[in-house]
Amino acid sequence: MNQENHSTPKRRPFLAASAAFASGTETPRTFLEGCLEDVARWEPSVGAFTVMDLEGARRNADESTKRWAEGKPLSAIDGMPVGIKDIIDTDDMDTQQGSVLYQGHRPLFGAASAIALRLAGSTILGKTVTTEFASSEPRGTRNPWDVTRTPGGSSSGSAAAVGAGMVSGAMGTQVVGSIIRPAAFCGTYGYKPSVGGINRGGSLDLLSHSCSGVIAASLEDAWVMAREIVARVGGDPGHVGIVGPMTPPAAERPKRLGLLQTAGWAVIEPEAQEALERAIADLRQSGIEVVTRTDWAALEETEQALAESLDIAMKIIAWEWRWPLNAFMARDASAISQSARDRAATAEAMTQAEYAAILTRRAAIRATYAKLADGVDALISVTAPGAAPVGLATTGNPIFVVPGSILGVPVVTLPRLQAGGMPLGLQILGFEGGDAKLFALAAGLDQM
Amino acid sequence: MNQENHSTPKRRPFLAASAAFASGTETPRTFLEGCLEDVARWEPSVGAFTVMDLEGARRNADESTKRWAEGKPLSAIDGMPVGIKDIIDTDDMDTQQGSVLYQGHRPLFGAASAIALRLAGSTILGKTVTTEFASSEPRGTRNPWDVTRTPGGSSSGSAAAVGAGMVSGAMGTQVVGSIIRPAAFCGTYGYKPSVGGINRGGSLDLLSHSCSGVIAASLEDAWVMAREIVARVGGDPGHVGIVGPMTPPAAERPKRLGLLQTAGWAVIEPEAQEALERAIADLRQSGIEVVTRTDWAALEETEQALAESLDIAMKIIAWEWRWPLNAFMARDASAISQSARDRAATAEAMTQAEYAAILTRRAAIRATYAKLADGVDALISVTAPGAAPVGLATTGNPIFVVPGSILGVPVVTLPRLQAGGMPLGLQILGFEGGDAKLFALAAGLDQM
Repeated sequence: MNQENHSTPKRRPFLAASAAFASGTETPRTFLEGCLEDVARWEPSVGAFTVMDLEGARRNADESTKRWAEGKPLSAIDGMPVGIKDIIDTDDMDTQQGSVLYQGHRPLFGAASAIALRLAGSTILGKTVTTEFASSEPRGTRNPWDVTRTPGGSSSGSAAAVGAGMVSGAMGTQVVGSIIRPAAFCGTYGYKPSVGGINRGGSLDLLSHSCSGVIAASLEDAWVMAREIVARVGGDPGHVGIVGPMTPPAAERPKRLGLLQTAGWAVIEPEAQEALERAIADLRQSGIEVVTRTDWAALEETEQALAESLDIAMKIIAWEWRWPLNAFMARDASAISQSARDRAATAEAMTQAEYAAILTRRAAIRATYAKLADGVDALISVTAPGAAPVGLATTGNPIFVVPGSILGVPVVTLPRLQAGGMPLGLQILGFEGGDAKLFALAAGLDQM
Repeated sequence: MNQENHSTPKRRPFLAASAAFASGTETPRTFLEGCLEDVARWEPSVGAFTVMDLEGARRNADESTKRWAEGKPLSAIDGMPVGIKDIIDTDDMDTQQGSVLYQGHRPLFGAASAIALRLAGSTILGKTVTTEFASSEPRGTRNPWDVTRTPGGSSSGSAAAVGAGMVSGAMGTQVVGSIIRPAAFCGTYGYKPSVGGINRGGSLDLLSHSCSGVIAASLEDAWVMAREIVARVGGDPGHVGIVGPMTPPAAERPKRLGLLQTAGWAVIEPEAQEALERAIADLRQSGIEVVTRTDWAALEETEQALAESLDIAMKIIAWEWRWPLNAFMARDASAISQSARDRAATAEAMTQAEYAAILTRRAAIRATYAKLADGVDALISVTAPGAAPVGLATTGNPIFVVPGSILGVPVVTLPRLQAGGMPLGLQILGFEGGDAKLFALAAGLDQM
């Protein structure tokens, strides 16, 4: 590990601290100042933010301190320091989409999640770095656990900022692996809800299985932040949105889990595999049954159905990104990365009938997976073949996280595994609409 | 009828004219100049546009003329003069959403449909007036058939512009009755596709059953304009988009139609009812069977299921509009109409569970309606209780058009009925995904 920073990154859970806010032994302002110490310590080497509003953050933290003291916080996340991924519109900070095409762009109105966070009283510290259009092209953020490594993407800045304690939570978005992968690489909790769970309005996150979600310092922070947003702006139109208690679901010990190997199993690194197998052995030791594809025909069928997940996801993305990509390219094709131009070429070679067939295939895969609910409480998996790779040229291999994306199911990652001293996530996949249940199970596992 | 204009409005079908473009006896430029004559004649009293770009239109028409002469038009709608409803983003003209909150707003990039129309070579004449946020509050456009009357809404300017011959086609959007109602009131063809049929990206048209669609001078123009858009930008993400030939589907004579009375039957005006009943008598005369709720139990069941359509639609809209309405109100509540504020209050009084129940109810209504496909080719109905009402304070009663919206099925209106010398539409409702079939049947009826 690179020793440029002599301290180890440390998350700053908010809900655990807020218990002291009423008594005033701690306050949203003192909590924020702790975050700002980590900003001073980490941001110069990590580069998690595109823009920060320290003055606005301190002002809100002071107002929040007053609200808590009066017993009138706007929500459980009143005063929570958060970051917002820079594909999500904000009307008080530029929203630049990781692209020079949006340089200096200030939207007229904030996105649904941004407005909800403001209405809930949270302290929006800044916009976090995204890859170009939340896609492949990295934009320089470094992993606080080792600044020679990628933080993952596309929610690069959100994961790095939470991992380094600069904020307690941050908005992310995922269509391939853009929440779960960086959350895991940076040693944080990550939550991608069921499809439609959080209103994506006002974010450039347009694809048919993309989700807004959260990266957070604790499992409780992740749930409550997401739930408070949905209480104010709902899910995507036509979706009920995340359903469940406003407080974190009570921990529940799973009885039976399925190991999802995915196509990633062929490329998993020894250390990651050992870490996962040790975790599974511990689970079994404690009386939780863990079944695999060799034990259970329905799981084998699902593994086979998911084998082409990455190819399916990339074709769906290519087709569904024809617009706005054609609008961007018409403006200035040279401002677009080669990877984005390649995607346009992929779409060009597709027909409407092929896209229709892929949608049908995705629906069939979802139906196959859904049957697993009869046999297991949830599925578990590692989040990547290994720790965050060295270098900033890519954001790492998404092979283990893309299945959860195309399935449209809720996914949580817990910072419970390690490989070579770097964090790696234990991924838990639930069933569509069962987000609260998944959090209960994840809490059960996280307490073991 | 008001005689301020002594001429009768006349539509200008584009495809019928384009046959002469290759030979040069007519050209996209001469065609455009015809439209501009109608702009000079009608626009001062009608007010269909928020902004026009005559210079750009003429430049494109000249380029198009050259392309046709060389036998290389970009599409069948190359050079077609069109208008774009002002809730749909354009990067070369302001997009003002019928609201002072967006006054002078110039989006960075055009919406999917706007970009597709440009790529297809069409001549975008201007942005057409919309009610506030494509909702209830009118913005002053008048009906070219009688300028003391509403053109309908929310696609007010699109319908008025097509009805008066100022353009051959225009983009509209519908979540209650915003395409079909104004198209009918202004004596044009209107087409609301199956849900997801045309990519809504970049338009403030966010609700779970809203659709982008077209208002056009002929049935052929409507189909081809929509189809050329979908060829370039697809349907909404996750939807295949309108499927069918690039050319207008061949006319097909229906065998059996169902009359959909809807809740509007209780308030239909005598002249409208007589016009519809005469049309039905003609259909029967020519050998087409027309069944009603009294003839067929499945249709009676559907009529009952649809009885609360308007209430269901208004609740869905209220809930799904919490954002961006809360963003607008946070900025300047005084800039928002009372009707929009009332909608916010409706949403405030709803719970997530109520919204979930309404989504379930809508799905059940759709399933009930879908069963009618076993017995009839399509459903027919009138588009409003009567002709466009006098006055500009409202855009007319949506009671006959809201069922097609919540059902998510394709709907076409033909300018085949009249009431008191004013146009009224014959509405034809198909089945989800059967847009091409619906156009074939509509062509069959339109030729009778």
